[in-house]
Amino acid sequence: MRAAVFAEPGKIEIADRPDPKIVDPTDAVVRVVLACVCGSDMWFYRGQTPYEAGRPVGHEFIAVVEETGAEVRALHRGDVVIAPFAYSDGTCPHCRAGITTSCQHGGFWASGGMDGGQGEAVRVPFADATLVQIPGSGHSETMMRSLLSLSDVMGTGHHAAVSARVKRGSTVAVVGDGAVGLSGVLAAKRIGAERIIALSRHADRQALAREFGATDIVEERDEAANEAVIGLTGGVGADAVLECVGTGQSMATAFAIARPGAMVGYVGVPHGVEVPLQSMFYRNVGMQGGSAPVRTYIPDLMEDVLAGRINPGRVFDFETDLDGIQEAYAAMDERRAIKSLVRVASL
Amino acid sequence: MRAAVFAEPGKIEIADRPDPKIVDPTDAVVRVVLACVCGSDMWFYRGQTPYEAGRPVGHEFIAVVEETGAEVRALHRGDVVIAPFAYSDGTCPHCRAGITTSCQHGGFWASGGMDGGQGEAVRVPFADATLVQIPGSGHSETMMRSLLSLSDVMGTGHHAAVSARVKRGSTVAVVGDGAVGLSGVLAAKRIGAERIIALSRHADRQALAREFGATDIVEERDEAANEAVIGLTGGVGADAVLECVGTGQSMATAFAIARPGAMVGYVGVPHGVEVPLQSMFYRNVGMQGGSAPVRTYIPDLMEDVLAGRINPGRVFDFETDLDGIQEAYAAMDERRAIKSLVRVASL
Repeated sequence: MRAAVFAEPGKIEIADRPDPKIVDPTDAVVRVVLACVCGSDMWFYRGQTPYEAGRPVGHEFIAVVEETGAEVRALHRGDVVIAPFAYSDGTCPHCRAGITTSCQHGGFWASGGMDGGQGEAVRVPFADATLVQIPGSGHSETMMRSLLSLSDVMGTGHHAAVSARVKRGSTVAVVGDGAVGLSGVLAAKRIGAERIIALSRHADRQALAREFGATDIVEERDEAANEAVIGLTGGVGADAVLECVGTGQSMATAFAIARPGAMVGYVGVPHGVEVPLQSMFYRNVGMQGGSAPVRTYIPDLMEDVLAGRINPGRVFDFETDLDGIQEAYAAMDERRAIKSLVRVASL
Repeated sequence: MRAAVFAEPGKIEIADRPDPKIVDPTDAVVRVVLACVCGSDMWFYRGQTPYEAGRPVGHEFIAVVEETGAEVRALHRGDVVIAPFAYSDGTCPHCRAGITTSCQHGGFWASGGMDGGQGEAVRVPFADATLVQIPGSGHSETMMRSLLSLSDVMGTGHHAAVSARVKRGSTVAVVGDGAVGLSGVLAAKRIGAERIIALSRHADRQALAREFGATDIVEERDEAANEAVIGLTGGVGADAVLECVGTGQSMATAFAIARPGAMVGYVGVPHGVEVPLQSMFYRNVGMQGGSAPVRTYIPDLMEDVLAGRINPGRVFDFETDLDGIQEAYAAMDERRAIKSLVRVASL
């Protein structure tokens, strides 16, 4: 099969990879229809984290079930499914507690010999537990994009909101206007936040943030950003802060604009981050977050997508096919795109 | 009046200090009956944090109202009150949100010119909001000790449990067997934790931990402690971890024994602590805690104390009077005492 692989920093190419086959009886082999590029893919693309040449890439996809192992019960050939960015057995203590990304037998696409999502086909372990079937058929292009976003970015934005303990009526600040930050705005709105302050310097992202529910935009950075948010909240700070970048600067901003007793929900993979523990202690500001257990969130979020209540697929503003994979990465790297969709096959 | 003051590391003495007077109309002047020494007092006593010579000490006390300012409504001369370790106005946004230790107009005893709790009398700002009247009279000595513990240590242990999101049925691990850690055990039990693993190396503290509700004791340290707790929890880790020490070692243990998705509630003032952010991220382990808003907790905890459902005063295992203040500190410093009570006057 054809699949995207990492060649060297700045270069993603299409290679021939072995066709996936059923290995374990709980496996499925799926044919990828839609994939996309993640903000976290930029770390290896830019050479900021190590990645082996020839290793497949991609971890977000919608696919059609092609073949199922003997013990797969819930899924059948032809089912259209959403793959969360991690596979999980659904039965271990961590899965049962909803933290599917810590599954005792789980793992991640494009890692440890697994296929990547940016390719024609994928072997999926624990298919019944990992994949979520999309009910119905003939969904619109817009709907399919929103369903694709549940594979990672919308679930990750939601995880930031859940980890920050956003509640109905909360005043929420969102640090980061990438696809995850924008999804965080939408997630906060969906939960019922009354006021959502988006920190964004880009007009197009500000517009989408407003469409997703942001009530205020702060363009400033660093100290000026802190002052702006504190000012907007009457000197109090935000009830909940979503940190959707993962740098030291963004984390410092997140803690500075959180009111005493608030939580910072962080979902940007931390790079060079120091936690301001003394100030956290004296202000009782906490933090939680991490690798989002999106599998746990998909059913609820999908219900809202299918009902047309949320439209998270709006984060995709660039589209190409598998042959255009290099450009899909470059567009995000150069910030020409918020998020790139890769149309691998038609349904 | 006579009040304890810091002389130099290792030396606390009794000095003459001005008799407190009403300054603001919301003030009360109270006569201290019972005071105590805090684990956090050990930091300056040992010379590990700076403290000015002659500065008063102590922040936990039960007192009798002596005089009230013109705007004090709820309290009257003769009322017996619990003073939380911070004063607060009760009306600012942070107080209304329950984070009284971040009160916009509040502060701490023995700080910024305020009287200390280890002395004969104290001027109390925002008396109506700060102090909590003890209903009834003629309470037993045992009951008075438990009420005194609500001034800080029991409320702080409770804050660790609240911050760690202890729930009915939780498996909880408590790092630290000082007075706060033991109070954390009791707080977890009170909330309804099903299993409470206390990390303790001292037989007397283990006994009190068991009395307070600990179901398991782990005597090991570091890696061996981690393995013991993970083993006791079937390889899963604790649902909630209370970190009640504040050192790098105790914090590392707390994160290592938390299950994925768990929270570490920390209330030890952090000294030399580094937060293991990468491992927190990949395991979704969060943290919250800090300077406990005990004023918020006193009413609920007091109800349970007065009903005899909890007996947190058991942490006091050394008693002296104001003249014995040096010994009260030395006993805790040398770990001869879990917590020292200072009987300043009779009721």
